[in-house]
Amino acid sequence: MKLTRTSLSQRSDQIYDVLVVGGGAAGLSAGIYLQRYLLSTLIIDKGKARSFWMQELHNYLGLSPDTPGREVLKQGKEHYLSLDGDYLNGYVEEVIDEGETFAVKVRIGRTNPTYKVFHSRYLIAGSGIIDHLPKLVDMQNVFDYAGHNLHVCLICDGYEMRDKRAGVFGSSESSLGVAFPLGWFTPYITLFTNSEFEVSPEFRDRLSTHGYQLIEQPIKQFLGENHQMTGVELADGSVVELDTGLVSMGSKYHTDYLKNIDLEYQGGNLVTDNMNRTSHPRIFAVGDLKVGMNQVVIAAADGALAATQIWRDIRRSEGTRHSSPAAINAA
Amino acid sequence: MKLTRTSLSQRSDQIYDVLVVGGGAAGLSAGIYLQRYLLSTLIIDKGKARSFWMQELHNYLGLSPDTPGREVLKQGKEHYLSLDGDYLNGYVEEVIDEGETFAVKVRIGRTNPTYKVFHSRYLIAGSGIIDHLPKLVDMQNVFDYAGHNLHVCLICDGYEMRDKRAGVFGSSESSLGVAFPLGWFTPYITLFTNSEFEVSPEFRDRLSTHGYQLIEQPIKQFLGENHQMTGVELADGSVVELDTGLVSMGSKYHTDYLKNIDLEYQGGNLVTDNMNRTSHPRIFAVGDLKVGMNQVVIAAADGALAATQIWRDIRRSEGTRHSSPAAINAA
Repeated sequence: MKLTRTSLSQRSDQIYDVLVVGGGAAGLSAGIYLQRYLLSTLIIDKGKARSFWMQELHNYLGLSPDTPGREVLKQGKEHYLSLDGDYLNGYVEEVIDEGETFAVKVRIGRTNPTYKVFHSRYLIAGSGIIDHLPKLVDMQNVFDYAGHNLHVCLICDGYEMRDKRAGVFGSSESSLGVAFPLGWFTPYITLFTNSEFEVSPEFRDRLSTHGYQLIEQPIKQFLGENHQMTGVELADGSVVELDTGLVSMGSKYHTDYLKNIDLEYQGGNLVTDNMNRTSHPRIFAVGDLKVGMNQVVIAAADGALAATQIWRDIRRSEGTRHSSPAAINAA
Repeated sequence: MKLTRTSLSQRSDQIYDVLVVGGGAAGLSAGIYLQRYLLSTLIIDKGKARSFWMQELHNYLGLSPDTPGREVLKQGKEHYLSLDGDYLNGYVEEVIDEGETFAVKVRIGRTNPTYKVFHSRYLIAGSGIIDHLPKLVDMQNVFDYAGHNLHVCLICDGYEMRDKRAGVFGSSESSLGVAFPLGWFTPYITLFTNSEFEVSPEFRDRLSTHGYQLIEQPIKQFLGENHQMTGVELADGSVVELDTGLVSMGSKYHTDYLKNIDLEYQGGNLVTDNMNRTSHPRIFAVGDLKVGMNQVVIAAADGALAATQIWRDIRRSEGTRHSSPAAINAA
């Protein structure tokens, strides 16, 4: 059920089999599998998963290519709730490993928040990442286009940018390197530093070899209408016309709540085995948070894998939760 | 485009980037990703993927839990064709490794078949498996229930069998062992050997400890109506009432066409790395054919992974297929 501040007390003494941090594609898929394994599950979601911002999910098998990411999340949440999983809007602040269980401290509500500690045997970290965006004076101007024709994922949207005039917005020289694989899709590439960092002579040489343009003055604003970016206005008032853009500025990793637990990372990503178990035997990582590709269909598969391994663990340790037929008859 | 016997000649000299054997969930997802990477792709499908038989796909994120497997395949095929991928109904008989390319011999048509050899740089084996079913005199009697309430996948359908009287139909003592994890979902389990194999005293002891029943005489027929099995009639005319069944008789692996290529197997499954590359650098395996879980959402993710790695390979070797802007201007 969807837990609210008032219904929370019904779950006071519950020890969940699994607490899932994050109700994005990975967490919801895990929840669906877990409930179907008859394991008690609580998903805690802070809202606005990365896929929430995708206007069209072009590459997810089984869904029409104009399906918005938020539709998948809506369907997945309904599906999970129909299987009697618990779901709470909240923000996970801290996880303490108590040995057999985790204590998970959750902030509920933004104004006058309340706090509650939940307990679970296993934890699935599906809290994901969020992309850094160009820092302009008017951020609404960025939000107007992000997820429409201002993209954040080359693998997802390179195809949408084919043969178009594409701007690449980076936060460092190495982050601008995405221009070269983008060159597979279009030769018309302009890179922007927004005056935030320097670029080496070697990198400039490489850009001119490819015929790419580099613009180093500050960006005043994106131009366009109806969520379609048409170019960039620079500080000096000049305009660079574009048909599309790719932001490559790194991501924020939502792992603060794991700070007290010793886990193996690679960059900001959690290292996992092929069933998505982290270096902690009762913590799994799924979706964009783990090492691997950031794709919705892969996140959904991640959830299935983690849930299945947890079921195997619990089943092997408990055998069954059913009484035997003999015991049922005797009762 | 969908290739037909008459349109085949348009593709006579084509060397595809990737030929995908099998148009199930894994192959279609691979095809969607490959076409979006601007790689030329041919999917060859013999029809009737394993998921085609699933009446309801209960655990696929983003789809209502009553979605039939065939709907996913239909949507995926439309999606792939909308991206200009080539698709052919045919049966792949043999693959020859020519060094830089593969020669793939395909039989087209069942009566008066024609044969054609296609060429590709990479091969994705997504031809899957198909479950062995109990061999009864009247096989239509088996087909009437298989995929409805006579299941073949514990992970998919254990939940559907919860607290129900379940029959387990095996082909060996070890295959009957699925009864124990099934015991997680229901305590009411009857195992059937159909008089095809012997069972050890140790196994009998284990069954009686769990309170499971073993029936060793031949099965005459399944009973039921409207695709809902209600029990089993035995050779002696007695009836065992059941609410559901689980077939655990192993599978046929569709890998005959790979017989001339040296590949690493584990059981019948192809061994792959985490991007689904087999022990051959230009052959990938996806879906039920590879080592791992047999789930539609995992197959879909498999396709994404294999396609992405192939794109990376080709991109790193070719750089780009675009002319530079300078070359375009000069032309």
